[in-house]
Amino acid sequence: MRGSPAIDRLIDSLKRLPGIGDKSAARLAFFLLGAPDRLVAELADALTRLKQETVMCEECFNLGDRSPCPICADDRRDPSLVCVVEEPADLAAIEKSGSFRGRYHVLGGTLSPLDGMGPGELRIAELERRVRSGRIQEVILATNPNAEGDATAHFIGDRLQETGVLVSRIAYGMPLGGDLEYADHVTVGRSLENRRKFSD
Amino acid sequence: MRGSPAIDRLIDSLKRLPGIGDKSAARLAFFLLGAPDRLVAELADALTRLKQETVMCEECFNLGDRSPCPICADDRRDPSLVCVVEEPADLAAIEKSGSFRGRYHVLGGTLSPLDGMGPGELRIAELERRVRSGRIQEVILATNPNAEGDATAHFIGDRLQETGVLVSRIAYGMPLGGDLEYADHVTVGRSLENRRKFSD
Repeated sequence: MRGSPAIDRLIDSLKRLPGIGDKSAARLAFFLLGAPDRLVAELADALTRLKQETVMCEECFNLGDRSPCPICADDRRDPSLVCVVEEPADLAAIEKSGSFRGRYHVLGGTLSPLDGMGPGELRIAELERRVRSGRIQEVILATNPNAEGDATAHFIGDRLQETGVLVSRIAYGMPLGGDLEYADHVTVGRSLENRRKFSD
Repeated sequence: MRGSPAIDRLIDSLKRLPGIGDKSAARLAFFLLGAPDRLVAELADALTRLKQETVMCEECFNLGDRSPCPICADDRRDPSLVCVVEEPADLAAIEKSGSFRGRYHVLGGTLSPLDGMGPGELRIAELERRVRSGRIQEVILATNPNAEGDATAHFIGDRLQETGVLVSRIAYGMPLGGDLEYADHVTVGRSLENRRKFSD
């Protein structure tokens, strides 16, 4: 499209988002061009403030507006039960299911040697430290049910074995190869309820 | 999702975009949360500057970075041939096809009485003025090949009849019910080449 560097720049920025190709980016850009100024300003503002106003919880490593996060600071949530997830989006999916009343631990990804993700890149040492501190009785491994998530769950299961804590894995109520972030909340809830003791 | 008003606010903003529902908005927001600061800042900046740096061409009503736009200012483009489109996105689609070397006229929508879009809401009077000014020999009606686009084309065809200018309609190389903005550029090009004299 000739005539507007501002439109081209926005299209280029939008194309870097996941699931947005050339045509979707152009469509969104032209929608925004015709949209009320207020709507565009609000989106720009929300983007600017996203990073500024987001802090990581020192306890569970979830992202939110304060540390400790509201979940870690909530006395009514069981501190003896910790659910280990890959990313904040997975934590959000489990919270939405409403079937978990314990605490969380956000790993920050999965083991993936080809992408340079080893145990040191994830918050596994921090999890061990939390477990060894003594309050935790059960660790639920809620990494995604795919190759990387399973490998990560096994790795963590092995590392926690000697601590004597009960380690469980979410049930395969989840469709294999699926992604917690996009599952419906009933499925997410069922896979938590049907969790089983972790063993190889 | 509890814990971060900043994430919720971004999700709410993203959901107002066309084709982005609850899950896509959450997915994009969490992607942006994990993305480099620079990428998010560039997107916010592109949005902020989109409206600031975009002006409407006084001649053809396209949106760009200056008025007259580069197309209207380009002496090599035939001023006797004017292609009438609904929106700037349609103009961009035709430019991308590379099969048109005339000028444009952007209507700003289609006739749609139920949505309060009458002839006064579109730039039809401005088109008549351009035609009556004398330089134009042919007006190509390139509104989209759907009910509103056809109705708008017929309305404009009637209005221009007494000016004696040749009025043509893009060929139905376009699939019926389709949208110029999303068509492949070969189809867009063919529908321009095969345009026919406009009559009822």
